[in-house]
Amino acid sequence: MEDLVQCVPNFSEGRDRTTLEAIVAAARAVPEVWVVDWSGDPDHHRMVLTLVGPAAATRDAALAAAAEAVRRIDLTQHSGQNPRLGAVDVVPFVPLGATPMELCIRTAREFGARAAADLNLPVYFYEEAATRPERRNLALVRGAGFDSLRHVPLTAERAPDLGPSHVHPTAGAVAVGARGRLLAININLRSDDLDVARAIARAVRERDGGLRGVRALGLRLPSRGHVQVSINVTEPDRVPLYRVLELVRAEARRWDVPISGTELIGALRLSDLLETARYSLGLHDLREGQVLDNWFSERLNLE
Amino acid sequence: MEDLVQCVPNFSEGRDRTTLEAIVAAARAVPEVWVVDWSGDPDHHRMVLTLVGPAAATRDAALAAAAEAVRRIDLTQHSGQNPRLGAVDVVPFVPLGATPMELCIRTAREFGARAAADLNLPVYFYEEAATRPERRNLALVRGAGFDSLRHVPLTAERAPDLGPSHVHPTAGAVAVGARGRLLAININLRSDDLDVARAIARAVRERDGGLRGVRALGLRLPSRGHVQVSINVTEPDRVPLYRVLELVRAEARRWDVPISGTELIGALRLSDLLETARYSLGLHDLREGQVLDNWFSERLNLE
Repeated sequence: MEDLVQCVPNFSEGRDRTTLEAIVAAARAVPEVWVVDWSGDPDHHRMVLTLVGPAAATRDAALAAAAEAVRRIDLTQHSGQNPRLGAVDVVPFVPLGATPMELCIRTAREFGARAAADLNLPVYFYEEAATRPERRNLALVRGAGFDSLRHVPLTAERAPDLGPSHVHPTAGAVAVGARGRLLAININLRSDDLDVARAIARAVRERDGGLRGVRALGLRLPSRGHVQVSINVTEPDRVPLYRVLELVRAEARRWDVPISGTELIGALRLSDLLETARYSLGLHDLREGQVLDNWFSERLNLE
Repeated sequence: MEDLVQCVPNFSEGRDRTTLEAIVAAARAVPEVWVVDWSGDPDHHRMVLTLVGPAAATRDAALAAAAEAVRRIDLTQHSGQNPRLGAVDVVPFVPLGATPMELCIRTAREFGARAAADLNLPVYFYEEAATRPERRNLALVRGAGFDSLRHVPLTAERAPDLGPSHVHPTAGAVAVGARGRLLAININLRSDDLDVARAIARAVRERDGGLRGVRALGLRLPSRGHVQVSINVTEPDRVPLYRVLELVRAEARRWDVPISGTELIGALRLSDLLETARYSLGLHDLREGQVLDNWFSERLNLE
């Protein structure tokens, strides 16, 4: 298949189970699309949905989920940890297998056109789907987010690529993009010291001298009573997961703070697991072909 | 597929590249069968071939490889580290996916009948395929091996299940079995102290108080100038690879001997990699469904 894509929409709701399940159900109802993973986080007040399927079907599943989110999420009632642009905050399309990035860019543009027309959302295209160089960077697109855009006209440098020149009253705007794969992990610290989480985040993220393509944020998790380092690895083939973990562990030791556990948000690749095993088991020459599951189709019948 | 099996024949030749490649080629020539892995070790003087396919085709590929081995390997000229029963030393059949063990037992018996009739080898059935309780244990079946059987009639408790009542003059006998999956790993020590390798082997193997279902042997590797702990994990779903490694590391620290690397002989399962990642990355809740490769068939086109 040369049109297989992954779509990882993020929604600004992580608490109301009914809303989360309604969004998942809307995506699941679209044929040919697999819901690989979904999780809501009450502290991030965010839901991440991971879809895999043919580009067109996956686009439609993401649109169905987005429509449900716009219907149910009211950002004026909202307070979360992550900066957020809208109820449907960000919708990235990622190539799988032999799928070219161009198809993901085209699919992102189609999603944007429908989100503007059917959901009345201002649409900003980012990263590979960006229409202007300054919009490649999602952080810049998002800016100060919904609250800063609520009462101003979306004109000049704030003008959306598509849709109305004002944010949706309850659902804000949406960033739609095409990008390479990314790994999202949360590392939980057995500590309530936000300064430590922030110091570790600074130590590992590229911006402050850390690992290439790594973004990190220190957060407080009130519902769990501890702090967390939330990390995006944007070049996982260059920067293996184990190396990020070891660096975080080294910095955590500096502050004498134990790591209680790690969460993977969304999906990873078999290649990530192989590199982890090569490192942690010393299996330097382990080959993908040695994974028996690759040789029969049992693994494909997960649903 | 309900008739998919794995077959892992071991041959008593690890040095002559021509022989190794001829054996692999013979197996490869059989349609519908995948050669997942093969490796020869000059010190073990042994080759391990890993085949996957429908039971009948895999049986035939193993037979073709065995015929090639009998033709080319002369045990009277042989000196190796592992105890060995024959040129085709051991031929285990392992269920894959939904395949029942009964099919592997039947396939082992068919292989044995052909090995006796076509290759003139005494055949001993072991483990699940054993015809007598005392032959379930491969070590007991193998006994002192070829050299002890060469000049004696194979009668009474030495009588084979099938085939002649004397060993093949150059190829000895063969043990054919059906069993659950096992993991074979070699852990190389940066040391030439055989006593240390043996002490570590004793510490980790079940027989001497170590981990359940773990078999281990300390070996000298003259060609590489260091020693090795060679390990079989026979219950890998109960005893994860990482735990065996950590135990070996702990014992190696006791002797202040560094581990230079680990080799996996044959194949492992995705579940082994997941458990390794759960442990070494702290991803306690990592699910198989989060491995993207499970959701599309790219992985199946390895050949």
